[in-house]
Amino acid sequence: MCARLARWSAAELALMPSLQKRMHSTMNKADRFVVPVDRSTLPRGYLVATTYAGIKKAISPAPATDAAPQHAPKPDLTLLVSSTPASVAGTFTSNKFQAAPVVHATRALQAQGPHARARAVLVNSGCANAVTGQGGYEDTETLVKELQKLLPAGKHNGPDTASDVLMMSTGVIGVRLPLPQMLRGIQHLMRGHVLQSNPEAWLEMARAFMTTDTFPKLRTRQFKLGNRLCSMAAIDKGAGMIHPYMTSPGGLHATLLGMFVTDAPVATPTLQRCLEEAVRESFNCISVDGDMSTNDTILALANGQAPVIGTGSPVEGEISERTHPELVNIFAEELKAMSIEMAHLIVRDGEGAEKFVQVHVKNAGTYEQAHAIASSISTSALVKCAMHGEDANWGRILCAAGYAAVPSSSPAWSLDPTKVNVSFVPPPNASGLSPIHTLKNGVPQHVDEVKAAELLAQEDIYIDMDLQGGSWKEGACAEAVFWTCDFSKEYIAINGDYRT
Amino acid sequence: MCARLARWSAAELALMPSLQKRMHSTMNKADRFVVPVDRSTLPRGYLVATTYAGIKKAISPAPATDAAPQHAPKPDLTLLVSSTPASVAGTFTSNKFQAAPVVHATRALQAQGPHARARAVLVNSGCANAVTGQGGYEDTETLVKELQKLLPAGKHNGPDTASDVLMMSTGVIGVRLPLPQMLRGIQHLMRGHVLQSNPEAWLEMARAFMTTDTFPKLRTRQFKLGNRLCSMAAIDKGAGMIHPYMTSPGGLHATLLGMFVTDAPVATPTLQRCLEEAVRESFNCISVDGDMSTNDTILALANGQAPVIGTGSPVEGEISERTHPELVNIFAEELKAMSIEMAHLIVRDGEGAEKFVQVHVKNAGTYEQAHAIASSISTSALVKCAMHGEDANWGRILCAAGYAAVPSSSPAWSLDPTKVNVSFVPPPNASGLSPIHTLKNGVPQHVDEVKAAELLAQEDIYIDMDLQGGSWKEGACAEAVFWTCDFSKEYIAINGDYRT
Repeated sequence: MCARLARWSAAELALMPSLQKRMHSTMNKADRFVVPVDRSTLPRGYLVATTYAGIKKAISPAPATDAAPQHAPKPDLTLLVSSTPASVAGTFTSNKFQAAPVVHATRALQAQGPHARARAVLVNSGCANAVTGQGGYEDTETLVKELQKLLPAGKHNGPDTASDVLMMSTGVIGVRLPLPQMLRGIQHLMRGHVLQSNPEAWLEMARAFMTTDTFPKLRTRQFKLGNRLCSMAAIDKGAGMIHPYMTSPGGLHATLLGMFVTDAPVATPTLQRCLEEAVRESFNCISVDGDMSTNDTILALANGQAPVIGTGSPVEGEISERTHPELVNIFAEELKAMSIEMAHLIVRDGEGAEKFVQVHVKNAGTYEQAHAIASSISTSALVKCAMHGEDANWGRILCAAGYAAVPSSSPAWSLDPTKVNVSFVPPPNASGLSPIHTLKNGVPQHVDEVKAAELLAQEDIYIDMDLQGGSWKEGACAEAVFWTCDFSKEYIAINGDYRT
Repeated sequence: MCARLARWSAAELALMPSLQKRMHSTMNKADRFVVPVDRSTLPRGYLVATTYAGIKKAISPAPATDAAPQHAPKPDLTLLVSSTPASVAGTFTSNKFQAAPVVHATRALQAQGPHARARAVLVNSGCANAVTGQGGYEDTETLVKELQKLLPAGKHNGPDTASDVLMMSTGVIGVRLPLPQMLRGIQHLMRGHVLQSNPEAWLEMARAFMTTDTFPKLRTRQFKLGNRLCSMAAIDKGAGMIHPYMTSPGGLHATLLGMFVTDAPVATPTLQRCLEEAVRESFNCISVDGDMSTNDTILALANGQAPVIGTGSPVEGEISERTHPELVNIFAEELKAMSIEMAHLIVRDGEGAEKFVQVHVKNAGTYEQAHAIASSISTSALVKCAMHGEDANWGRILCAAGYAAVPSSSPAWSLDPTKVNVSFVPPPNASGLSPIHTLKNGVPQHVDEVKAAELLAQEDIYIDMDLQGGSWKEGACAEAVFWTCDFSKEYIAINGDYRT
């Protein structure tokens, strides 16, 4: 270690934090956040296929020119098929202007009720099919019906086999889907040899989710439920219009596309409950720009095809809170951990993001109060600019806490300014750094500017705010964690540079 | 006109919109928005004085260097004195972390009740005196008491003459005021010859309000109340942490500093009611960055010294709703119009702002619903980037409307997506342009890109959203207007460039 450091001059060493920062910002995010997936960790009983259907090209045609395109066309249509109907759950945006695929999927899940099953999920990027009226809804229906015709007849447990194919769309608002291209695309995807299951096929599916994302987001994990070795794959995408608050078909909110695909045997209502819990503390706790999309959707599929392994108590049928409460807890924890992992990827790939910022609010009166304050801090333009500038500006943090829209259903709000502590703490991946306490019991502390600069030069910045119970001394231990990114000039460039 | 146009070539004429834009952005805002004030329109019975007390220098000392400072020091302490105790009203930030001067002024008004009077207002920039604990509160008290000692003994109507001096502060959070410099400054300001009333003295006062503002904000107006010719001067400042929601001492909200100073004879409770009404539809309807400050304060003073002119019915004593309902209506309208004028100046000088954007939401169920939707659109980072990019992106506008936090106390929310109209309309100062209808009854319309580009190339962009009553058909005509600016790279530079 010393030998390596010796290669740097003293002046260079003094520049280390900013060098490190520059390395991070120039290094391709794909090189850092796309991790290899082992074939053995892919869920059993699913096949995927992806194609370039020309959706983006149909919507924004390239200018007529003889010049060859600069880049190869990007995949924009992708299909997941389960060999047996899978338990299915979903959470959807609470935006009043729900896109057609969101309305369709919500209705499909509600029509089937507690025995909802899905055989396939179709996803497109390039066109959100949002604010497209009745015609847009019928487009989704047409595509779903076409797919149902082509799917092998499956054995169904559910009452409504007409709604066992779901769709997710992302892209431009207010434009109809290019149906002819997409119908041809579906024909192609359903050819026998195109549907596959291997790491490259799954990664290609993740690529087809992408819009302004800079890297595909795919992760897998394995866990045991009794004598079953379960696998779960997850895909999601951002990267703007990200401030989800997703709810269940009847009630909950979200703002991105995501999919959790597992071979675990889980009953539909249990899957729904576990997904809602997971989304509540992951996707509903992130913000890129504070804008909640019209299309946010997270789906979870569980087809029960996980293989039996030698040890563990036998699991027959699907697990539920009634039949296997302990196994449900294990599954719920795995799903939540994976949801947080996938939500973090969205923040890391936020439009223009150079920083990953965690805001941890402790000792509020209720979770909702802690969540509202953490959300307010994470959405503040001034806080996000300060993080971009590596400025330990706790004044802006406190200010954003002070105007948080604490739900009126919460107990009377009585945050006590004289009890608030604010610290910047070293992220888990940084060693040798100390916390910087900027405010203790509402009193500004002397801050060592050199140490603060070191801490804030990290790509990951962790902010802790302890409300010390406000005035609800007894039992006040509610906390919430929120994740956000910084605001950079690149964000403005992506979303606002003058049109040419 | 034709002759003038003939100087331009056809190619240059085609470039007119972008030329116009460039002219606006490079032209000093001070040259465009500082208007001369006529001495005869200044309110009677007030004197003002301004000095450079060194508050900014004391808080952020310049590095030790022999080099001469690049700029002359900026005024940072200013005083208004009324020759007789004036009726006084105030609205203050609803941020939980109210700064010391806000707490002090709130208590002063509450202590005096319906007969509240003020003899003087002291304002400093450079230090917000926010999150400074009990010590910070005592600093405000010390300054106010010092000023009271120096003021000539006035004749008081109110019960509590200890609270007839109010203070406003703006600047850095978490730092104590430099008391010795400020006490010396007050001594200087109270010297007989320093207090004056002339246009330059008032403009210098407006300069002392400035922080990141690029121009001083001062306006005056005159109106008749019966046989009295009343004058009103107003000063305010932004330019960041601007998303006010101000309330009265007991209840209302705001996030900037502003002062309305008139010689009209208005009773205190009437002045308070008129100010709250004016603030509700002006300062509480603007956003620069969505951040509500800890210091927002608007004060209004009315000392009744307006001269009698020949005509009009005689007005004796102070007007109130009970004694002079018609005159109160006239005064309320003048105050509201001036509040809107002053609120617009804040938006025009918003940090990094190149556009002035009006969002008009019509035919909601209640004013609160219309306000919440207009506020959501005006705060959306994506909408503000689109306006910066002159992009008629109604999808982002609709999306922001869809996630608006409509107050839960409002009637059940039932915005009907199939009824929404969205248009860009020409601002009043643009002739020869036509409206662009982007959405009618929820259906996207064909947009003439050339006309849209012309309209959006204007500095002022007007967005109209008609909800057509949602599902509250009867009596649904509630509307709200909000004003915001665009998000530019300059905003990021001002608030987030890496510290050197």
